[in-house]
Amino acid sequence: MALTMYDLAGADDAHRFSPHCWRVRMACAHKGLPLETIAWRFTEKDRLPQPSQGMVPVLVDGDIVVNDSWRILQYLEERYPAKPLFGNDAAVGTALFIKFWSERVIQPLIARIVLRDVWARLAEKDKAYFRDSREKRFEKPLEEVVQDRDQIVLRLREALEPARATVQQQPFVSGATPAAADYILFGAFQWARCASDFELLAADDPLIVWRNRMLELFNGLAATHLLGPLIRR
Amino acid sequence: MALTMYDLAGADDAHRFSPHCWRVRMACAHKGLPLETIAWRFTEKDRLPQPSQGMVPVLVDGDIVVNDSWRILQYLEERYPAKPLFGNDAAVGTALFIKFWSERVIQPLIARIVLRDVWARLAEKDKAYFRDSREKRFEKPLEEVVQDRDQIVLRLREALEPARATVQQQPFVSGATPAAADYILFGAFQWARCASDFELLAADDPLIVWRNRMLELFNGLAATHLLGPLIRR
Repeated sequence: MALTMYDLAGADDAHRFSPHCWRVRMACAHKGLPLETIAWRFTEKDRLPQPSQGMVPVLVDGDIVVNDSWRILQYLEERYPAKPLFGNDAAVGTALFIKFWSERVIQPLIARIVLRDVWARLAEKDKAYFRDSREKRFEKPLEEVVQDRDQIVLRLREALEPARATVQQQPFVSGATPAAADYILFGAFQWARCASDFELLAADDPLIVWRNRMLELFNGLAATHLLGPLIRR
Repeated sequence: MALTMYDLAGADDAHRFSPHCWRVRMACAHKGLPLETIAWRFTEKDRLPQPSQGMVPVLVDGDIVVNDSWRILQYLEERYPAKPLFGNDAAVGTALFIKFWSERVIQPLIARIVLRDVWARLAEKDKAYFRDSREKRFEKPLEEVVQDRDQIVLRLREALEPARATVQQQPFVSGATPAAADYILFGAFQWARCASDFELLAADDPLIVWRNRMLELFNGLAATHLLGPLIRR
């Protein structure tokens, strides 16, 4: 039986952009596990199987329900050990570091670039929830969150330096072949790519080569997902 | 035959503070390899065995000479595979990321806190070289490099967030047990600790618990190295 993931969708059912859901999607492809996805919206918390934290991804594997992208990656590694996502305990440890780096350094900067574009592509019923929750978090209107994005993108590019240096020395963050740390960081880029036409990287950034490698993996799984349609209200 | 490392020393032969040499020292202890060190000063480039880049660490293992701390860690792992420093290719890859994060985000901030204190503990003959090369790099006098350190330390603490979050979830950056990524980041802390009495971490920072764990490893190898004496000229 295929795995099933509750996956955040925009107004268009096919518009899937959650950075944490993309981690799981890439990880399942890495292991060659078929994955079905269910389009889910922020305001459909009651539709999620339990246990959940009211957020996606939630993975359903037969009778087993796992939430939180990091826990899902651990679950996949334990339940389906072939084609390791990590490989050993030290690699799990350092991938956890890269997860926190992505979530606490990189994704907050990307948010300050794409957040209003994300909002503009959401389902009508999600828009008020998203605006309220994000404006509470940033303590300002969405339009003000992103108003300095020409400056923020320079800070983002600077913050990406450790990843840039790494992929100048080896093809993937994880080494010669992609693994969990790549899917984690790529999730952040795929989020921006599917939700905004704002380009995060300078044209000559070595990270573009890495990003293209990631887009082409698994027969272009990520590349086939395009920028979602803009929903005007 | 014991391994030998050329190791940066201050005015006092016993004052060893190079972050990159500390990586190697901890890695050898991790593998249970006896390591002899030779006190070396910045102005003694001609004393280094070849190949070298005029910098330490340089490791000598019989007829083999290896320079650059990252290459030395790879060499140790290949030549002495027991007690792995990494474990698999993905862990090497993600440790490389943490190396670049330490070198390009963390160490430049620590430099802007401790650099003048490092200088004050150097051998007389090294002081001019160190001041000139660092003032060229920072484009200002050492005294000005560190003049904002009360502000810089706040930026450092913020930048350390991915490591902080990681060690709140597991005992070491590498997971349940210490490995290469820990020695790499710890090298930066040991550099500051042996060269300056300026405290990098707030009293309630969870990273203090991790740093203490690192200091206590291998019978307190790192803890026995104290702040070097101040050399007045």
